[in-house]
Amino acid sequence: MNDREAITAYIASFVDELARNNIKHVVVSPGSRSTPLALVLAEHPDITIHLNIDERSAAFFALGLAKALHEPVAMVCTSGTATANYYPAIIEAYYSRVPLLVLTADRPHELRDVGAPQAIDQIHLYGKHVKWFVEMAIPEHTEEMIRYARTIGARALATAAKEPAGPVHLNFPLREPLVPLMETVKNYRINEKAQSSAAAVEGGELILASMQLQAMAETLSESKRGIIICGELRNDEMKTAIISLAEKLSFPILADPLSQLRSGSPGGENIIDCYDTFLRGENASRLFNPDLVLRFGAVPVSKALLLYLKKHRNTRHLVVDGGAGWREPAGLVTDMIYSNEIFFCNSIGEHIEQREKSSWLGRWRQVNDATKNALESIRDEEELSEGKLFILLQDLMPNKSHLFVGNSMPIRDLDTFFFSNNKEIRTFANRGANGIDGVVSTALGVSTVLDNTVLVIGDLSFFHDMNGLMAAKLQQTNITILLINNDGGGIFSFLPQASEKDYFETLFGTPHGLDFSHAVALYGGKYTKVCSWDEFKEAFTNSFEIQGLKVIEVPTARETNVLKHRELWSYVSQEIKEALNEEIK
Amino acid sequence: MNDREAITAYIASFVDELARNNIKHVVVSPGSRSTPLALVLAEHPDITIHLNIDERSAAFFALGLAKALHEPVAMVCTSGTATANYYPAIIEAYYSRVPLLVLTADRPHELRDVGAPQAIDQIHLYGKHVKWFVEMAIPEHTEEMIRYARTIGARALATAAKEPAGPVHLNFPLREPLVPLMETVKNYRINEKAQSSAAAVEGGELILASMQLQAMAETLSESKRGIIICGELRNDEMKTAIISLAEKLSFPILADPLSQLRSGSPGGENIIDCYDTFLRGENASRLFNPDLVLRFGAVPVSKALLLYLKKHRNTRHLVVDGGAGWREPAGLVTDMIYSNEIFFCNSIGEHIEQREKSSWLGRWRQVNDATKNALESIRDEEELSEGKLFILLQDLMPNKSHLFVGNSMPIRDLDTFFFSNNKEIRTFANRGANGIDGVVSTALGVSTVLDNTVLVIGDLSFFHDMNGLMAAKLQQTNITILLINNDGGGIFSFLPQASEKDYFETLFGTPHGLDFSHAVALYGGKYTKVCSWDEFKEAFTNSFEIQGLKVIEVPTARETNVLKHRELWSYVSQEIKEALNEEIK
Repeated sequence: MNDREAITAYIASFVDELARNNIKHVVVSPGSRSTPLALVLAEHPDITIHLNIDERSAAFFALGLAKALHEPVAMVCTSGTATANYYPAIIEAYYSRVPLLVLTADRPHELRDVGAPQAIDQIHLYGKHVKWFVEMAIPEHTEEMIRYARTIGARALATAAKEPAGPVHLNFPLREPLVPLMETVKNYRINEKAQSSAAAVEGGELILASMQLQAMAETLSESKRGIIICGELRNDEMKTAIISLAEKLSFPILADPLSQLRSGSPGGENIIDCYDTFLRGENASRLFNPDLVLRFGAVPVSKALLLYLKKHRNTRHLVVDGGAGWREPAGLVTDMIYSNEIFFCNSIGEHIEQREKSSWLGRWRQVNDATKNALESIRDEEELSEGKLFILLQDLMPNKSHLFVGNSMPIRDLDTFFFSNNKEIRTFANRGANGIDGVVSTALGVSTVLDNTVLVIGDLSFFHDMNGLMAAKLQQTNITILLINNDGGGIFSFLPQASEKDYFETLFGTPHGLDFSHAVALYGGKYTKVCSWDEFKEAFTNSFEIQGLKVIEVPTARETNVLKHRELWSYVSQEIKEALNEEIK
Repeated sequence: MNDREAITAYIASFVDELARNNIKHVVVSPGSRSTPLALVLAEHPDITIHLNIDERSAAFFALGLAKALHEPVAMVCTSGTATANYYPAIIEAYYSRVPLLVLTADRPHELRDVGAPQAIDQIHLYGKHVKWFVEMAIPEHTEEMIRYARTIGARALATAAKEPAGPVHLNFPLREPLVPLMETVKNYRINEKAQSSAAAVEGGELILASMQLQAMAETLSESKRGIIICGELRNDEMKTAIISLAEKLSFPILADPLSQLRSGSPGGENIIDCYDTFLRGENASRLFNPDLVLRFGAVPVSKALLLYLKKHRNTRHLVVDGGAGWREPAGLVTDMIYSNEIFFCNSIGEHIEQREKSSWLGRWRQVNDATKNALESIRDEEELSEGKLFILLQDLMPNKSHLFVGNSMPIRDLDTFFFSNNKEIRTFANRGANGIDGVVSTALGVSTVLDNTVLVIGDLSFFHDMNGLMAAKLQQTNITILLINNDGGGIFSFLPQASEKDYFETLFGTPHGLDFSHAVALYGGKYTKVCSWDEFKEAFTNSFEIQGLKVIEVPTARETNVLKHRELWSYVSQEIKEALNEEIK
């Protein structure tokens, strides 16, 4: 009995500390060794358990919850290869700076490296892809070890949440008997927040000294043709600060589709949302020759923007990163600024004068508008295509809705075709490592806590995480999935590999011929395959009236898609040529 | 052009070296960064490519091929989280000593840790779970670097295959342009095996000195009540050597179901195959009091055997391991012997006398036979049950067939109910880390190269790797899957967790209510759900006449299964009580 008592006291105190530090959601995968954690978590009144059988999907589901809520989410699994299935989502969380608390059960020391079942080497299992790893002590019921368990819990959550946010891994060696004394668990719960049985962590933010700020403010004030670039931001408060600064300087903001700056048109005049198209124009780089680049947030999606920036290699290039990382694959940064972004914008704003609306901003505005008009021509296309889908989503998405897009083509089409609009539509994607894996589960995690969630995903990515749909079945989640099915890997048709005809279809095109209606039936969802835009509009609009999982398949053709993209680009480039040339004169 | 030439020469030489070292199968997952490897491998006339979209399934599929063939198999994927999806199978391969060559494409150095897409930290990505990791040089076309690429290839395969066999990871940083000059690839192929453009590796085996052997032979000669225990063995040659030694000593061989010693009755009298049942008997440990234990191969499946051995903690306990590991979770070994097992058995055999058939062996034989008779009573059960299934499989499996069993319950039922028989039926399971993940893909890997493959798997494990079925569709693989569906985690009903009624079904029972006919339809397989043993027999027998994927669902009830197991055990223990008591007198 003594062992059961130790495991109960230790685990119950640890779990209670998580709850005291505002862990509200835990994703649990079934297993035996993890029994104490699973049972005690399920018993805690402030914690919601989400069961997910496939640990790979479970971890991405937790990632989705954490992204949606902007707060740490925990996950629990048993020992052995179960833990390794978490790896892809942990890597994604690490690079996209999403706080996760990974709790793995393990065999105790005497059962390690001796061929015991489900015993693998879980020490530093996730390598460099977690912010902190702790091999927990074997449960003991002493005052010191209870405080230890609580402190590790508080510290782990503070570490996960601190910028750059990311995953933390706690590994629990647990001996049998594994079933806690459930009737005593609540005795280890601390109700008074003030009770000092564990350390609280107060996290600070990086700020620049006033000398540094003054120098930066001077640099910005001297710039006549500055541009601000915003990738995915950490939170909504950053938007306001960046927009104020842009307005004061009369700089355009090149707003990545994940920056949330295209939603609800908060930045009005300053927001540029068609740069991915018009920066490909032949005169664009000459016309838009910046004297300063100021970048916030994650690396933007647009490859055209990257190439444009590379043409202006000698321009002063500032990257502000409150997480003190190095998100700069182009190798162009001249000043890496480790400062909380809001502090930076507001402080700089105090040092600089409000400018008149500049002709520089006007030029961006004009070409942006001309481009948007040209792109809107895609509305006339009758054939189902990925570009037009995103244009229509602006019309059809409800206000206060959530749009998750898959990697590979959907995120690029979002960038090109999803413009600023007056609705509040929050966008999501997994852009830490840009994998096609785990997207279904991440979107389902989002949809579990946010209403009106729509996922746009390609067929390969949908296939990769089809197991994730189990969460929709078990938890009756509402989600609308737009499955763009071109029977294989669409993006490869845009790459040089496409010319290797002998091997292309086998190695890259990968046609699978799956009839996804079976997959949707398996999970009790509603499946609709649309053949025209009218059918699509009807199915999409109706989907919000139906509970549960709705999958709308939009069949497209890979080769046609490439041709159409090229045709459209040729039309758009003709249309905006004039705008570009006019400005140059 | 120069870069394309370098990448062509370097990759083509590397791939050719793999082929020269008998790599015949490579599992490729689609991706862009891995283009040079994928294209050049596809082009090589001696290499067969197996495409598998989901990298998690791909790696298990490769594992299955390598297990079936007893030779290294390679796999290729692109950079980013794709690589992390390989992790579960790599861990399984490491602990089950299966040689795999893991080839991951990576971004070049200048795109690392700067937020570039699909760039993660792939250096030592799999931690301690690979035998060797190499960060490859950037491709160069110099004599030295071509030799380097070839030598790494040869060395990697030798390392993977050397005992203890296991996975090796080579990480390839690759710069654009990624498409090799395909028409020149064959210029880098060496046709003469003799040509010395790379090092060949000759692997040796561990052997004991004659003094050591003599001492061991004396120890064995002195033993009157020795037992030999065989877990999964490395190859068939080991069987013959172990049986000869057992016959000479008149020792019983407790033959794990994965030892292959129950197949084709090669060991005749000495093979004991019902120990998992009768060692639970109350007098068993007193009756079968060994004075020596000699163990070969992996840790046996049977928990009853483990508990029995623990009761004889002070017995001399020899473990022979040609891979010089430490597969001994019970903590009972007195002599860990690092010697090639065949060499050990044959050399010891030369030092010892042929004995008469001992009464010690007779005692094992008698109780074993009585137990088997009692267990056969399960044939009278009309209800579908997991135990009877394995009894029937002995009748119904074709000669020269292959039986893959899932973890959790199927492997335990195999142990209890699948006895020695005259047919050649090779058994398989993933017993490195005993995960329920990846089982479908591993079995499909086996079925790709071995005829008449049958997989027996539970519903949770089947669900976990449903994506693996894509291989059956794309490659038209023949396999019969017996899906034992008890709608959740059957094994947990046998554990103490089952008493926590408030949380049990949610956290452990995990009922999912999936209608798997949809999953089978998705992959174009033939699905049959059977309701009686007659239906089962018909469906199973017919399945060998049908091409492709056949799934036969055998519905069972979790609670009934527990009760039936207990009833049967109580019947069997009554039946064998007499045999046990009689012997004691």
